Amino acid sequence: MNSLQGNPAFIAYAITCLVLSANLIFLWAFSGATRGKTQTAINPEDAARFGGALVDVNPPEVARVLRAHDNAQANIYPFLFLGLVFVFAGGSADFARIIFGIFVAARLGHSYAYLAGKQPWRTIFFIIGGLSTIALMLDIIWLLVRS
Amino acid sequence: MNSLQGNPAFIAYAITCLVLSANLIFLWAFSGATRGKTQTAINPEDAARFGGALVDVNPPEVARVLRAHDNAQANIYPFLFLGLVFVFAGGSADFARIIFGIFVAARLGHSYAYLAGKQPWRTIFFIIGGLSTIALMLDIIWLLVRS
Amino acid sequence: MNSLQGNPAFIAYAITCLVLSANLIFLWAFSGATRGKTQTAINPEDAARFGGALVDVNPPEVARVLRAHDNAQANIYPFLFLGLVFVFAGGSADFARIIFGIFVAARLGHSYAYLAGKQPWRTIFFIIGGLSTIALMLDIIWLLVRS
Repeated sequence: MNSLQGNPAFIAYAITCLVLSANLIFLWAFSGATRGKTQTAINPEDAARFGGALVDVNPPEVARVLRAHDNAQANIYPFLFLGLVFVFAGGSADFARIIFGIFVAARLGHSYAYLAGKQPWRTIFFIIGGLSTIALMLDIIWLLVRS
Repeated sequence: MNSLQGNPAFIAYAITCLVLSANLIFLWAFSGATRGKTQTAINPEDAARFGGALVDVNPPEVARVLRAHDNAQANIYPFLFLGLVFVFAGGSADFARIIFGIFVAARLGHSYAYLAGKQPWRTIFFIIGGLSTIALMLDIIWLLVRS
Repeated sequence: MNSLQGNPAFIAYAITCLVLSANLIFLWAFSGATRGKTQTAINPEDAARFGGALVDVNPPEVARVLRAHDNAQANIYPFLFLGLVFVFAGGSADFARIIFGIFVAARLGHSYAYLAGKQPWRTIFFIIGGLSTIALMLDIIWLLVRS
């Protein structure tokens, strides 16, 4: 089976992947729910089927949720690829737990801060997420050089 | 080699990854082809080199393809990460074939329905894809808890 | 540990993932830096906290960087998923080094050409990246069929 079930770094990755995927899927679904609340539609067939005013440009509330989602995608996907590489390069479970944990907390904080319009928190969470990604990249380089 | 070739859940994942990547790449290339057909360019250097009227905003046909691509990215990437976790957590080949198969069919249906402007099909395919993702997440949680 | 450290195709993948993640993260951070230079803000709370004129639409310089990032995401993520599948399907290290290397060079060239507004280079780099992805997909199909 080649299963990684017994690898604690992989367990940390699996939980990270679950939470961050839930974060992304929530933001995407929330953009649709927010669009519904504005009673607008961006596609003619949606307006025809479900009602709402047809618009060319997203209402500000919807655009905000989509920007939060854009930011989440731009930061989370690279981290998830790098996290997998880290696990398969034999990275330590302790390092995984710390860096994955900080990144997950920072990204959840970022999504909340974006939706709630909280500054400077949004920027602080963004920077913490970015520094976690850089730390992960440096550790992967170290694992590769050492091997 | 650490090869997963003998693992049937991985074979299902590999095929899923091939089809969904083709879906994404087609939509991206199609947005470019659609832009060409509208004889517009969003970059001055494109208008200068290849002709077409320079525009600030994508024509509606192009914007539609890009929205279909946005939706595909937002849903497919999390699923592909979760699918990998499922395979490495020792998930069953039968579950993989069913859930991956339903997700792939739903996403292909969604892309078609978006490009063709078919409602309520687009929404139905979106919901089926979302439910498949949730089922995959729940099964991963089950695999982690059981282990 | 189930480590892939001894697998040369995986080493090639790990380096590819590091460089392409850096490419993506640079473009995202650069879009923020470019926004700062235009002294505009897209969120009211950013204007209130950090100054800048509140705008509804991204200034052209920012929109260009974000289009470069969109293109990078649309092409890099599928390639990184397919590259992982290739490694786990037991793909050869030589093929990995050649195709991953060409793709990485093409994507770095594309990002540079987009930011600098260089045509036909941007299109040429895009096509090279696309052909590399198709070559990778065909080799994965070959690995699956042969197995």
